[in-house]
Amino acid sequence: MNLDIKTQNIEELEKSSQEIRELLINVVSTNGGHLGPNLGVVELTIALHKIFNSPQDKFLFDVGHQSYVHKILTGRKEKINTIRKKNGLTPFTDRRESIHDHFISGHAGNSLAAAAGIAEVNKNNKIIAIVGDASFANGENFEALNNIGGRNLKNVIIILNDNEMSIGKNVGAISKLFKGIMDTKFYNDLKHDIEGLIRKIYMGKGIADFIKKIEGSLKYFVSPISIIEKLGFKYFGPIDGNNFEKLLQILEYIKTIEGPVFLHVKTEKGKGYLHAEENKEKFHGISPFDIKTGEVEKSNKKTYSEVFGKTLVELAKKDKDIMAISAAMVKGTGLLEFFNEFSERAFDVGIAEEYAVTFSSALALEGKKPYLALYSTFLQRGYDQLIHDIAIQNSPVRLIIDRAGIVGEDGKTHNGLFDISYLLTIPHIDIVAPTTCRELVDILDYSTNINNPIAIRIPREKSFNYKGNSFKVSRGKWNEIKTGEKDLIIAIGSMFYEIINIYDEIIKNNLNPTIVSAAWIRPFDKEYILENISKYENIFVLEEGIEVTGFGANLINYLNENNILKKINKIGLPQEFIEHAKRDEILKEQGLRGQNLLNRILEGRKGGK
Amino acid sequence: MNLDIKTQNIEELEKSSQEIRELLINVVSTNGGHLGPNLGVVELTIALHKIFNSPQDKFLFDVGHQSYVHKILTGRKEKINTIRKKNGLTPFTDRRESIHDHFISGHAGNSLAAAAGIAEVNKNNKIIAIVGDASFANGENFEALNNIGGRNLKNVIIILNDNEMSIGKNVGAISKLFKGIMDTKFYNDLKHDIEGLIRKIYMGKGIADFIKKIEGSLKYFVSPISIIEKLGFKYFGPIDGNNFEKLLQILEYIKTIEGPVFLHVKTEKGKGYLHAEENKEKFHGISPFDIKTGEVEKSNKKTYSEVFGKTLVELAKKDKDIMAISAAMVKGTGLLEFFNEFSERAFDVGIAEEYAVTFSSALALEGKKPYLALYSTFLQRGYDQLIHDIAIQNSPVRLIIDRAGIVGEDGKTHNGLFDISYLLTIPHIDIVAPTTCRELVDILDYSTNINNPIAIRIPREKSFNYKGNSFKVSRGKWNEIKTGEKDLIIAIGSMFYEIINIYDEIIKNNLNPTIVSAAWIRPFDKEYILENISKYENIFVLEEGIEVTGFGANLINYLNENNILKKINKIGLPQEFIEHAKRDEILKEQGLRGQNLLNRILEGRKGGK
Repeated sequence: MNLDIKTQNIEELEKSSQEIRELLINVVSTNGGHLGPNLGVVELTIALHKIFNSPQDKFLFDVGHQSYVHKILTGRKEKINTIRKKNGLTPFTDRRESIHDHFISGHAGNSLAAAAGIAEVNKNNKIIAIVGDASFANGENFEALNNIGGRNLKNVIIILNDNEMSIGKNVGAISKLFKGIMDTKFYNDLKHDIEGLIRKIYMGKGIADFIKKIEGSLKYFVSPISIIEKLGFKYFGPIDGNNFEKLLQILEYIKTIEGPVFLHVKTEKGKGYLHAEENKEKFHGISPFDIKTGEVEKSNKKTYSEVFGKTLVELAKKDKDIMAISAAMVKGTGLLEFFNEFSERAFDVGIAEEYAVTFSSALALEGKKPYLALYSTFLQRGYDQLIHDIAIQNSPVRLIIDRAGIVGEDGKTHNGLFDISYLLTIPHIDIVAPTTCRELVDILDYSTNINNPIAIRIPREKSFNYKGNSFKVSRGKWNEIKTGEKDLIIAIGSMFYEIINIYDEIIKNNLNPTIVSAAWIRPFDKEYILENISKYENIFVLEEGIEVTGFGANLINYLNENNILKKINKIGLPQEFIEHAKRDEILKEQGLRGQNLLNRILEGRKGGK
Repeated sequence: MNLDIKTQNIEELEKSSQEIRELLINVVSTNGGHLGPNLGVVELTIALHKIFNSPQDKFLFDVGHQSYVHKILTGRKEKINTIRKKNGLTPFTDRRESIHDHFISGHAGNSLAAAAGIAEVNKNNKIIAIVGDASFANGENFEALNNIGGRNLKNVIIILNDNEMSIGKNVGAISKLFKGIMDTKFYNDLKHDIEGLIRKIYMGKGIADFIKKIEGSLKYFVSPISIIEKLGFKYFGPIDGNNFEKLLQILEYIKTIEGPVFLHVKTEKGKGYLHAEENKEKFHGISPFDIKTGEVEKSNKKTYSEVFGKTLVELAKKDKDIMAISAAMVKGTGLLEFFNEFSERAFDVGIAEEYAVTFSSALALEGKKPYLALYSTFLQRGYDQLIHDIAIQNSPVRLIIDRAGIVGEDGKTHNGLFDISYLLTIPHIDIVAPTTCRELVDILDYSTNINNPIAIRIPREKSFNYKGNSFKVSRGKWNEIKTGEKDLIIAIGSMFYEIINIYDEIIKNNLNPTIVSAAWIRPFDKEYILENISKYENIFVLEEGIEVTGFGANLINYLNENNILKKINKIGLPQEFIEHAKRDEILKEQGLRGQNLLNRILEGRKGGK
C-alpha cells in the first residue's frame, strides 16, 4: 500500500481510500473496535493530512474512536492490526504513542478545550479539531466554543463530522438544527437578491453603514448555522465529506484564512462496507465479526447490562413511575427494549452526563423513580452533580453504574476503576455491587421503593448465578456462602464469581475459608464484621476497583475507628491507569482471576507484600 | 410593609420595590451576602410572582444568590435578617426551607436541567428558570437548552437575567452576543420592508411556500439571539427588567402561550444603592459594610488567596511561562493583580470549570506553567477532567484549590469538604496543604519547576506565620515543630494554625505532644511515619476535610498495608453537609478550633468515641 498522499492525485487518493477501508474492515473484524466512524472519515482524514502538515499542524479527535485512519497515515499502518490488543496500538489517541497525537481522547467533549490550550501556545500552527455531531452537544465543547470565539483564536479550525447518527440516534435541538440545513444555492441566490434590494431602499437615504450592520444578519440566509457565526467563527459547509474534490477545495481555502473556522462536513458512517452502512449503530463499536455476514458470535449467557435492561422492563410494567435515562448509551446499557416499550418514560439526553444527573434528580424529587444508567467512567463527568444535586437533597435517583471495573479493549480512558472510591467520598448514596445475576434482579426490585439515592454497580461481564440460590436482599446485609475457618474472604460484586471460580483450587491448597458474598458497600454489614472478624487469622477483601481508597481501605478505617486493629488483605487494583487488553487478560495479570488470584490469597496468608 | 403584590397596581409595586431594596441593603450590610444581584432583580421577581402562582408555577434560580427577593415574597420576610446566619435562612434556595423552593442552588448551571426534570413531571404547571448571564455560559446549561428544545418542553420558561456583569466581567463569545443586540425597532422596520420586497419578487413566480420557508430566517432581523430560536425556543426580548410596565406586559403574554419560551431581560446590578451601582463587582458578594460609605472593614492581615495572588505576580515577573487561569473568580482567588499586569498570560474562562481543567492541561503539555485557581467546591465540576485530561497524561497543571474546608456563610453548597478525598482517589496528582503563609510562598516557588500535576489547598482564612520560621520545602517531607512525648499530633494545612493556637492550653493540661506541620498529603512523609510512629501512645491526625475518606483514613490504610496496627485518632469533619454559619462558629462547633479541639484531643487520649 502506497500512502504517500501528499503526491497523489484524486484518482490515486480514491485508490488509497479503498485500500484503507479494506484494512480497517480486516482489522476490526478481527480485533473489534469502532468500524463505522472510521469508514466514514477515510476521505476526510486523508484530505486533512494532504492539505495540512502534521505534526506542525495539530489534529485533535473528539473521543478519538475516529482516529484509526489518522493512525494509519502517521506511521502506524504496520501496527494497526495490533490496535486494542495487549501491548498494541491504543484504541484512541495518546501523546505517548505518536508525535502526531497531541492529547488524550476517549471521553467526548474535551477536544475543543484542548485545541484552545494548544492554540494559545502554538500561534503559528493550525490546530484542527475533528468533532462528531454527538460529541458536539456535550457541555464542555460548548464552553470551549464560547471561549475560542471570545478569544478569537485565529488558528483554530473545528471540523464538525456530521454523520447524522452519532452512537445511537442523535438527540436534542442541536441535531435537529444540523438536519435543518437547506440547499446552499437557494440561500445564496436569495441573499443576492435581498442584498440588492436593501441597497436600493436605503441607499437613497444615505445610510451607508446600515448595509454593513446587516450584512452579518444576511449571512443567516447562507446557512442556519448562525449559532456558530454568532460565536465568532467563520462558518463553511455543509460539505460532502466523502468527496475528495470538494474536501480538498475547501480545506485548501481554509488553510489560507484567519479563523477561528468552523467547517461542517457530512460523512456517511460505515461507508464502503454494506453491513456497516445498513446497520450503523451495530457497527459503531463492535466485537470481532464475520466479514461476509457481518455477524458477531453470540453468547447464550446474558450480560449484566442485558439483565438490568430486561428486569427494568418487567418492573416498569407494574410501576408507572419508573423512568429510564441514558446518555447516548441506550443499547450499551441494555435499555433498548425499555426505550422501545416505554418511550414516554425514556430519556436519551445525549452525551451530557452533567445534565443527566441533575435532570434525574429533579425527576426523583418530583416523585418519579428514575434509573440513570451510565458507564462508570462517564459518571465521573457528573461528580459535582452527584454531590450538589443528588446527595445534598438526598434525592432517590437509581444510578446504574455499568462497565464498573475493567472494560478491556477500550483501555485506560474507559476502565471503571474509580467509582467505589469516588462514591465513598460522597454522603448519602447507597452503594451496591450485586454478586450474582439473581441478586441484581432482586436489588433492582428492592430499589423501586427507596427514599435515598442508590448506586448499583455492574461489571462488563456475562451474568453468573450461584447454584440458583437467591440471596436475601436486605439493605447493608451480606451473605455468608461458605463457612470455614482461619480465613475470611469478603468478595465484593464481580469478585464473588472470581472466588467461586477458584474455590476448588483453594480447597486443594488445604484452605477452608469462609466466603462472604458482599453486595453492599455502603452501608456494609457492620454487624457481621463486628461479630465475626475476631474469629479469623486472615481477612481478605476482594474488589474490582482501586485498593488504596476503595472498600477494603474503608473497612480498615472503620475497624480503626472502632479500635479493632487487624490486618486486612486488600485484593483489588492498583491506583494506576491500566492499558487496553482483553478483560480476561487484565484480570489475570492483575491477580483478580484464576491462579493469580489464588496466588495473591496464598501470599496474603504469609503476611502480604 | 405590605407585600400583597397580587392586588397592587404599578405605583404600589414601585413602593414595595423601594421597601424591599431598603430591607436588602439593611440585611446585607449587617450579614454580608449577595447585594448587587438582588437589588437588580427586585422588579423582575415581583413581576414574576404577580403574574405566576407559586408554588404551583415553579421558580428556579440559577446559583440562587439572586433569590433574596423571592424569599421575601414567599413568607420569609420576617426571617430575611437571619439569612446566612447560624440557624437562619439559607444563602441560596433549598427545598427544605420552603415549598416555594424546588431545587438546591449554589453551583451555577444546574437550573435548566432541574427545570427540565420538573417540567417533565408537572406538565400543567409553568416551570420558570431565572438564569444570570454568567451562568448561562456554563456547559450544563447548554446541555439543558439542547434537551429542552429537543423535547419541546412547552411549559418551560427561561428568563435570562442579563446584567452585563456577572460576577466579574463577562467573558466569551456568548456575552458579546448578548451585548450585540441592537434596537428592536430598527430590526422590526427592516424586517417589514424586506418581507414586502420578497413577496413582490417571488409572488409572480408562484412560489408561495418560499415565504413560509424564509420566515424563520427573517426572524433574525428581529434579534440576533437566533441561537435560542434555533434550539426550539420562542424568544422575547430584550426587555428592561427594572420596568414594571414592560415586565408585566410581556409576562402576562408569555403566561398564555406554549413554550419553551426564552425571555431576555436586562437588569441593572446594584440598582437603587449608589455604591453598588458604581462598584458592581465589589457588591456582587460582600462582607458586612457601612451603608453610608459602602466600605467594608479591612483587616491588616492578608488572606491566603491574596498571598497566592501576590506571590504569583512576583514569580511571573521572573518566569514568562507562568500563566493564570480563573473560572469567573479572578478577584476571589486573588488573581486581579496578575490579570492586570500580565493580561496576555491570564485567562478568565467564565463559569466553565470543565473547560478550565482541560484547557490548563493543554497549556501545561505544550510547555507552559498554568496556575488554575478554583474554589474547592467548584473543582468538583472538573473531576473527570482531572482524571482524564490531567492524571492520565501526567500533565503538570498547578491547581490552586481555594476555599478548601469550611467557607462559612455561603453554606453547604460552598464548603470545600471533599477535595482531599476526591484527589486521593486520582493517581499522579501531588496534594499539598501549606501550613503557614511562608510555606505557601515557598511551595508556590517550588511548583514553578515540576513535571507532574500538583494541587495546592488553601483555606478561606487570614494567613498565618509561625514565629517567622521558614519550613524547608521538600516534596513529601513534613516538619516536626515541637518534639515531645507520648502524643504525636500531625496537623495538615490549616489545622497547624489551630493546634499552635491552643498549644499553651495543651501544655497546661500536662501534655507534651510532638507537633508536626504536615503540608504534604501526597506523597506524605512515609519515612517520618515509619521511624517515629512506634514511639507514641496516641496519634492524632488533624485535617479540615471529611474524616472517613480523608488523609487520616489514608494513613491508617498505609499503616495496615505495612502491617503496622496502630490506633489513629482522626480529627476532621463528618461526612455530612454543613449548614451556613460563621467559619469561626463552625470550626468551634465541629471541634476543630479552641477549647473544643482541645477536648477532642483529650477524649482521643482516653480511647476515643
